[in-house]
Order: sequence, then C-alpha cells, then structure tokens
Amino acid sequence: MNIPQTSFPRVVIIGGGFAGLAAAKGLEEQELQVVLIDKHNYHTFQPLLYQVATGGLEPDSIAFPLRKRFNDVENFYFRLADVEKINADKKTIQTSIGDLEYDELIIATGSTTNFFGNTNIQKLAMEMKSVPQSLNIRSLILENFEEALLTSNLEERKALMNFVIVGGGPTGVELAGALAEMKKGILPKDYPDLDIRQMQINLIQSSDCLLKGMSAKASEKAEDFLIKLGVNVWKNLRVLDYDGKTVTTNGEDNFNAETVIWAAGVKGKTIDGLDTECVIERAERIKVDAYNQVLNHSNIYAIGDVACMKSEENPYGHPMMAQPAIQQGKLVAKNILAKLSNKKLTPFVYNDKGSMATIGRNKAVVDLPKWKFQGVFAWFVWMFVHLFSLIGFRNRAIVFLNWVYNYIRFDRETRLIIRPYKNKNSFSFRK
Amino acid sequence: MNIPQTSFPRVVIIGGGFAGLAAAKGLEEQELQVVLIDKHNYHTFQPLLYQVATGGLEPDSIAFPLRKRFNDVENFYFRLADVEKINADKKTIQTSIGDLEYDELIIATGSTTNFFGNTNIQKLAMEMKSVPQSLNIRSLILENFEEALLTSNLEERKALMNFVIVGGGPTGVELAGALAEMKKGILPKDYPDLDIRQMQINLIQSSDCLLKGMSAKASEKAEDFLIKLGVNVWKNLRVLDYDGKTVTTNGEDNFNAETVIWAAGVKGKTIDGLDTECVIERAERIKVDAYNQVLNHSNIYAIGDVACMKSEENPYGHPMMAQPAIQQGKLVAKNILAKLSNKKLTPFVYNDKGSMATIGRNKAVVDLPKWKFQGVFAWFVWMFVHLFSLIGFRNRAIVFLNWVYNYIRFDRETRLIIRPYKNKNSFSFRK
Repeated sequence: MNIPQTSFPRVVIIGGGFAGLAAAKGLEEQELQVVLIDKHNYHTFQPLLYQVATGGLEPDSIAFPLRKRFNDVENFYFRLADVEKINADKKTIQTSIGDLEYDELIIATGSTTNFFGNTNIQKLAMEMKSVPQSLNIRSLILENFEEALLTSNLEERKALMNFVIVGGGPTGVELAGALAEMKKGILPKDYPDLDIRQMQINLIQSSDCLLKGMSAKASEKAEDFLIKLGVNVWKNLRVLDYDGKTVTTNGEDNFNAETVIWAAGVKGKTIDGLDTECVIERAERIKVDAYNQVLNHSNIYAIGDVACMKSEENPYGHPMMAQPAIQQGKLVAKNILAKLSNKKLTPFVYNDKGSMATIGRNKAVVDLPKWKFQGVFAWFVWMFVHLFSLIGFRNRAIVFLNWVYNYIRFDRETRLIIRPYKNKNSFSFRK
Repeated sequence: MNIPQTSFPRVVIIGGGFAGLAAAKGLEEQELQVVLIDKHNYHTFQPLLYQVATGGLEPDSIAFPLRKRFNDVENFYFRLADVEKINADKKTIQTSIGDLEYDELIIATGSTTNFFGNTNIQKLAMEMKSVPQSLNIRSLILENFEEALLTSNLEERKALMNFVIVGGGPTGVELAGALAEMKKGILPKDYPDLDIRQMQINLIQSSDCLLKGMSAKASEKAEDFLIKLGVNVWKNLRVLDYDGKTVTTNGEDNFNAETVIWAAGVKGKTIDGLDTECVIERAERIKVDAYNQVLNHSNIYAIGDVACMKSEENPYGHPMMAQPAIQQGKLVAKNILAKLSNKKLTPFVYNDKGSMATIGRNKAVVDLPKWKFQGVFAWFVWMFVHLFSLIGFRNRAIVFLNWVYNYIRFDRETRLIIRPYKNKNSFSFRK
C-alpha cells in the first residue's frame, strides 16, 4: 500500500460515504495518521441519485472526489481499493492492493441492496445505490422508449412502457414521483409517436403505508401527491418473483414490465473476518455498543448503515439514513481522540432532526421533530437542505442552476444513453 | 422502423454530428419527412471532448439530446440505430432496427480514429472521438496515478506517470496543454506522496510543425506555450508501434508509457453498399461533387468529415473540422429543397472563418482570415466562440460556470473514475 509508518497511531476508515467522511473530517489535523479506503474515488450524495436516474442532474454534480476533499490535510492518505478481509488478531486488513496494519479501524462500508435471497430479482431488476447504477437506470428508461417506438405488438410496447418500482420508502417514492414528472413533461414531447397513456408507473409497497418511519400525515400526503401525478400506488402487495418479463405478486395483479427497480430493502455491507456473533442476521448489520465499538474488539468501530446499535427507542438499530451516519461518524472521531488521550468516551445519542421526501415539483413532505408540513413550502425546504448538504461550491452551484432551469422549463436535460442496449449485468458503454 | 409513410418525400440523415444536425435544421418545417439516425441519442460537441477527458467539464454539458433539439418539429423522426448498409438500387438502408426507404439520403457519419492499419496501437492506445472514450481517458489518467502510488519500482512508476500523445493537431495540442495544467494545479495536490516531476507529457508530431493547417505564427506560439507548460514536444518523430509498455519510434527515443493517446489521424466512417469507386482511399472519405452528391447517385449526399470534395484550394478535400461540416449541412438542405421544387442547385464554396486552438489558461492561438493573434485575448475569443457554439442554454450556462470556477480556483473538479481498472477494450463501469 506504500503508506509510511509513522510514530502516530494509524486510523483506517473503510468507506467514504456519509459516515466515513464525517469520521475522517473529525480526525483532521490531529496527531494521527488517517487512511481512507474506498472502492470509488468519490463520495456519492446518495439522496440525489434518483435525480441522476431520471435525467435531472449529471452525476459529477452529486459526487465529489475524495482526494480533493482532503488534499490539504496532513497525514491523510486515500487509497482506491476493495477491502476483502479483516484480520482482527493481527490488526490488519486485507485489500485488493495489499495488506495494511491499523491501530484503530472504522468500518463505514454502508449498505447494499437487499434482495432477500431472491436471485431472479437480483439478476433482473435494477438497483440504485451508486452512480453507475443510476446511470444505468437512466439509460434503460430511454432505451425502452426507443424500443417501444419500434414494435407494433401492443403487449410488448406496454411492457416496455411499464415501470415497476418495488418499495415505498423514500427511494421508491422519490423515483416514482420523478418518473411521473418525466411522463408529464418530457417523454410525450420526445416521443410524440407513442401514446403516453400506455406508460404506467407502479409503486408497490408490501405494508399498508408509504414512507414508513415518517408521520401518518406525510405518508398520506405523499400517496396523495403520487396518485395526483398519475402513479399507481399498490399497498399491501408483496412482489414474489420476476422472470425478466412478469412481476408476480401475492395478490391478483401481476405486472408485465421490462423495467423493475428494486428499492425494497437494504442490508449492511459487512466484511469477512469478524466473528459470526458480531453480525446480526436482520439486515446483516454489525452489532455495536453505544460507542460504536464492535463486540470483542475495542479498536474496531462500525458506523452508519452497516452498524446496528440497539437501544430502547431503536430496538433494530438506527434508521439506515444519512443523519445517524453523520452523527456516528462525528462521534467516533471524537471518541477515538478521547481514547488516545485516555479520556472518557461519550455514548451515542441520536439527534433525530427529522426526515423529508420530495415527490415532485412543489410537492414534498417534511417531518421536523416539532413541525410537520407538506406541499410547496416543504418542497423549498427540501431543496434548500439538499443543496446545502452537497459538498463543494461548484456542485452546489451546478445543482442549483439545473434545478432553476428544470423548474422554469419543466425539463430535465441530461438524457444521454451511455450504455448499450439493455442488459442489466453488463455495465458497458456504447462506444 | 415504424415510420409512417406519407405523401411527402422522405429525407434520411445518417449521423447527428455537426453536419447532420445542420442539415436537419435546414429541413425543418418543410414539406418533407426527415428521419435522423444516430447510434447515440445525443449530439457530441467534439471540440470540448478533451476537457471531459481532463476533468474540466462533465459530459452532459457538452452533449445534447437529439430528440430534445427536434421535439417541436413536425414530420421529424429520430431513431437510435447503427446503419449497416446502403442498398442504393432499392433506395433503402439496412440498420440494426430494420430497413428504411429513402427518397434522399444524407450521409453524415463523420470520422473515426485512423490507426493506419497498426492493430497493436488500435488495441492498446486510447482514442478520443466520443463521450465514453473521453470518460475512459479521464479514468485511466486517474487510475494510473492511483497505481503509481502503490509501486516502489521506479521504472514502473515513471511509466504510469508518462503520457504519450501522438499527433500534434488541435486535439493533441489541446489535450497536452490540459494535461500540463492538471500537472501544475491538480495532481500534485491530490497525490502529494508522488514526485510530480516524474510525470512526463510527450507530444509527438511526425512532421516539423504543430497545428498544421494553421499559420506559422500560431504553430510556433502553440509550441512555445506547450514548452512553457512543461510539455515535451517531439517533432519529426514518427511512432512505429506500441506493445502496451513501450512506444517505439523511428528516432532514438522510445517511451515507456502506460498511457498512449492516439490523435494522429482520422478517417471517414463510410458505410457498406456504395460502389468502390465512390470511396477515396486517402482517409477513406466519400468522393462528392460540388453539390455534395455522391458519384453515380444523384439522391445520395455525403457531408462533413466523411465527404471529400476536391477543389483547387483543397486538393484532398476540406479539413475534417466543424466549419466545413456545418456549412455543407446547411447547403445540402437548401439544395435538396431546391431540387424538390425544380430549382437550380448552388455549388459549395467553403467560407473559411479561421481556426483556433487553446493550449491552457490565458493561452490560445487564433487565425482569422485577416487577423492572427495569440495569448490572453485569443484565449477569451476561443472561450467565447466555443461557449456560443454549444447547443442549449443549460449547457452554455453550466460550461460557463465550470470555466469561471476552474479559472478562479485553478481547479478541474470532475474527477470521478467510473470505469474499472484499466483495460482499454472493456468500457465497463465500476459497480
């Protein structure tokens, strides 16, 4: 790995998402060596991936080069690598570019799509957890429309214009809303020879409400907004299988659809090498105590989505979202500094700042701890919060410019297909 | 193809580059049916590809969705397809999505990289004629630096930091200049553990001057600018081969380099089906008369890079650049309209508006017909002309914003690696 051995303790952080980034920031300019490892050379602002998938934003404006963020920080090292295994007894990690010793290890690997063991769905449905996956969804939507133009078989055309989004959490809701706006404003103009009424957007939720975890009012209003935008909302319906043509469910309705986006669950991205008892079966997260320390390993921490800290309020761990990740990242940095100077550690207390989701133009739902509101004002709050959460002035300026443009022009202009005709598992470009 | 048969004559345009786009614009809202076919769903503004390759711009801001450009034009059809063959006697073309009849056919397929038959170079060197190719170069540059960090073998590290650009035309010059600016401002900050002096940028030109086709003053000044930026300029040196490790030349100097970018030539992208006598061996262009008509086929036109119109001033055809392409596109549209209303056709006269190239910050060369100048003012002229040549308000605004930001901050922020570890021929994403 070619990282110099210094007299300072070495903290290795695996993952440059919200949690890892917050931890790295908290360890800046201390008497420490910090090594950040990620398989991408950029941080992804996941809450806006759905806008990349629906042509509203370019990927470069929601991602940020990790090296740039830290390039003026001393004693900071970044390595582009896949981490393969933790050897806790030797205090090393094994990666695609060699082994590395650590004094303190922070696991901030985040989460990955949970297909709950259904390999058909895993193989044939699209997921949206990374920039390339979002670009793939964007390309597939447009390719399906290009193909729909060519067929004179009505059933085939309908299947190409039928979108099934499984999962009524924020990702599913926001994606369904954005697709509905494409249906309203963009696709009929771009494809005047298609009958846009044949485009169907189906959002399938297994339980009886959308946006579980938000208030009842937010959930109802989100559903209301989606229905007004023309989305078919299916509740209490469970997807059983997908063969690439038909989505089968436990209800009366099956769906012939060429595009299925699976947003029905996530699970922790654990790493080999920890004792089996460290990992919880439910959502494959790593069990941590109130200091984010991993069971039996006082110098290994897990933070963010991959960590499961059980408490009375959160018997299954904190929600797998940006806020707990950022807060845990900040605290773990403080606690490592405290530990190294033999001070007392502070237990984690989640400060729930609320949550929000956008459904479309002028339509969002916001739950703050003391105030819940929906509609136009919520939408502005959503935009403001997301804009200022982005890293970097350039990114904020470009996202702002795109949003203003899209708002005024009812448009989403980044509609390039940069992958070949659909084949979910080949992520290759059109030359 | 599902394109309705109307009473209007059908004009088919193959290719949505500068030439094809100009032709399509000229045929808007006429008593015609226009079908535009391209293998991408977007127009690429090729003069700025080098900025995508060097992290200065995002691809979405230099490309423009073709459907959007024409979505309010009646009787206009776009199809995403590869054209495989022309059957001139049946007046049809054969494509990846079926056959199509035409009344008038415009071939605007542009050009592709010319490796002059060297299959090693074709396999192992990078080219930069499309958005995906430019993204690949961007990723490769950054991946090589990531890899250079890891090796303690000096020769290996030097090869990873050695860039060979073959061809001293505008593409080679602009790319070498942009790389030199990355070397100055960005890479030393992002990779402080590397000795940036080990990064070499070699620009190799087979003849005795850069920017052949521009004035002697422009050529000298460009070379001067490049040398000041630290580029090694090699003239009168011819690259013979590349085995993935070493570039061999006809001179004393060979180059151990992991990155070779081939910008030493282009050739027409011809289509099967034309008589052999229609295609000229030199640069594989299609021979056309003064009306851009293809030999023996009064209803087939070739325009832009793929067309070779010989004249006294241009014994080998017009330069393969945007200006002749746009002018021929405009004229061919006029001539088709004239022909259909039995009017006289106008022969093509190239209006050389001049040419320009940028080498870096405050450094450009401009040759106007009556005025040749270099330096800061030339650089502003270059930016102004390129900004206003882009299609779409959003693209112009975002490019402008990026340029202002890059200028003020000495930065180029779009540095995401979105392909896997280097393998030139696999254009796949990192998941």
